[in-house]
Amino acid sequence: MKRTRVALLDGGETSAKEYQIYWNYPSEAVVSMPTYGVLIDHADGLFLFDTGFDLVHVQTKMGISGALQTPGQTIPKQLELLGLRGSDINFVVNSHYHFDHCAGNKYCRNATTLCHACELEAAQRPEPFEERVYSDRSFMGDSSGEPELEIYTPHFETLRGDQQIATGLHLFETPGHTPGHYSLLVELSGRRPMLFSGDACYSRKGLDLMKMPASHVDPVKGYKSLQRLKDLAAQHDAEIFFSHDYELYPTYRKAPAWYE
Amino acid sequence: MKRTRVALLDGGETSAKEYQIYWNYPSEAVVSMPTYGVLIDHADGLFLFDTGFDLVHVQTKMGISGALQTPGQTIPKQLELLGLRGSDINFVVNSHYHFDHCAGNKYCRNATTLCHACELEAAQRPEPFEERVYSDRSFMGDSSGEPELEIYTPHFETLRGDQQIATGLHLFETPGHTPGHYSLLVELSGRRPMLFSGDACYSRKGLDLMKMPASHVDPVKGYKSLQRLKDLAAQHDAEIFFSHDYELYPTYRKAPAWYE
Repeated sequence: MKRTRVALLDGGETSAKEYQIYWNYPSEAVVSMPTYGVLIDHADGLFLFDTGFDLVHVQTKMGISGALQTPGQTIPKQLELLGLRGSDINFVVNSHYHFDHCAGNKYCRNATTLCHACELEAAQRPEPFEERVYSDRSFMGDSSGEPELEIYTPHFETLRGDQQIATGLHLFETPGHTPGHYSLLVELSGRRPMLFSGDACYSRKGLDLMKMPASHVDPVKGYKSLQRLKDLAAQHDAEIFFSHDYELYPTYRKAPAWYE
Repeated sequence: MKRTRVALLDGGETSAKEYQIYWNYPSEAVVSMPTYGVLIDHADGLFLFDTGFDLVHVQTKMGISGALQTPGQTIPKQLELLGLRGSDINFVVNSHYHFDHCAGNKYCRNATTLCHACELEAAQRPEPFEERVYSDRSFMGDSSGEPELEIYTPHFETLRGDQQIATGLHLFETPGHTPGHYSLLVELSGRRPMLFSGDACYSRKGLDLMKMPASHVDPVKGYKSLQRLKDLAAQHDAEIFFSHDYELYPTYRKAPAWYE
């Protein structure tokens, strides 16, 4: 059988003070928040887990001025590094639908979109304090302001509970940051499993401090999800790849390199 | 029938930066957080709503150095201003059991203690990230480090739902900051009703911004409780008295003055 391999698609970065990203952490240090997508080349097809932010959306719709993204740090350009196009992707999977994790979905028009049923519901009817972070609705074919997306109608398959979506590809429920948050574990033949935390935990520092994201809908579940990440890593002898870790991100290999 | 009257018992203050007290509010301004108890002299007896913090506890058990409380800002000394003693209190009611709202309960040894059933449960088995704020357990007769409390066994009556605990004394569920949080509305014959928010909202600024406390267990409910406070104030034409409002607190009359 084909060997599974993984490539990280660099997506640029935002920045924040630590008290803005770690809940109840009294540090005013400014840190960058790298973002990336995860391309999994698997016997069952090409899976893309998380797809970053759209620079125009964050600048014009959200008024975020500090986001950094070169033209090369978009999903189409990152896929090009691997000789691929968005239309080649078979499955898009999102940890959750916040703006910095789903913007590239729109380039994957042939893909089936896998998500937690609770997450799709949350994105369609966000809590009042969540409307801003769920403001990029292009993943669901909302073409407002982007007429070129008018004919894009994604095909959703909603899931509940932990799921093995393909051999060696496991989604684990890690709610709290959002209602239907999934972390992804990828088994590889040549190295330890890779556990992509998504925003259940932004960074190694967050896990060490047991500090969940300041952005959350359920801190009780969020705290349990921090513990779950630790437990999953231990059970599977997995290496955790954090979603926004400015210290570790430089050590992650990026496309066109592969993990396998 | 006896006219109900209300006195505010000054309890000293703590301080914090605004980002530490308002959830996701990016302000680093330092603000003081006054605390107070509410004595209600009612035909059915003397009710005491919230009882502030214990200076020794916050300094020695919690390591909070910035708390300010003179010997006159304790429950016994404040009651003295009204010619009362802790043993005169018939009912102690707490918005919730965080350390800065329940420390004076221990002086009211003849009182029946009214609380939301969910709050007592939360205080007895706090979430891991709530252990610190629930650390003053003297309200439940926990005498650790305070041997003089050994024989104190409070009599609890737990409630659920909105409750009228006496004529014109209404407890309204406002959860989110804690699981069993109550706000108190007091009807008076000579003025608009007084609505004591408790920590459902710290201040007028918090309500204007719809910013709930950074400390919370359920932000979805917490946001609804902010709206509920607005709705209750409108329905009852009540004046909201906030729990920790450094701007408004100087305008509140304190014991020995009465509102009636």
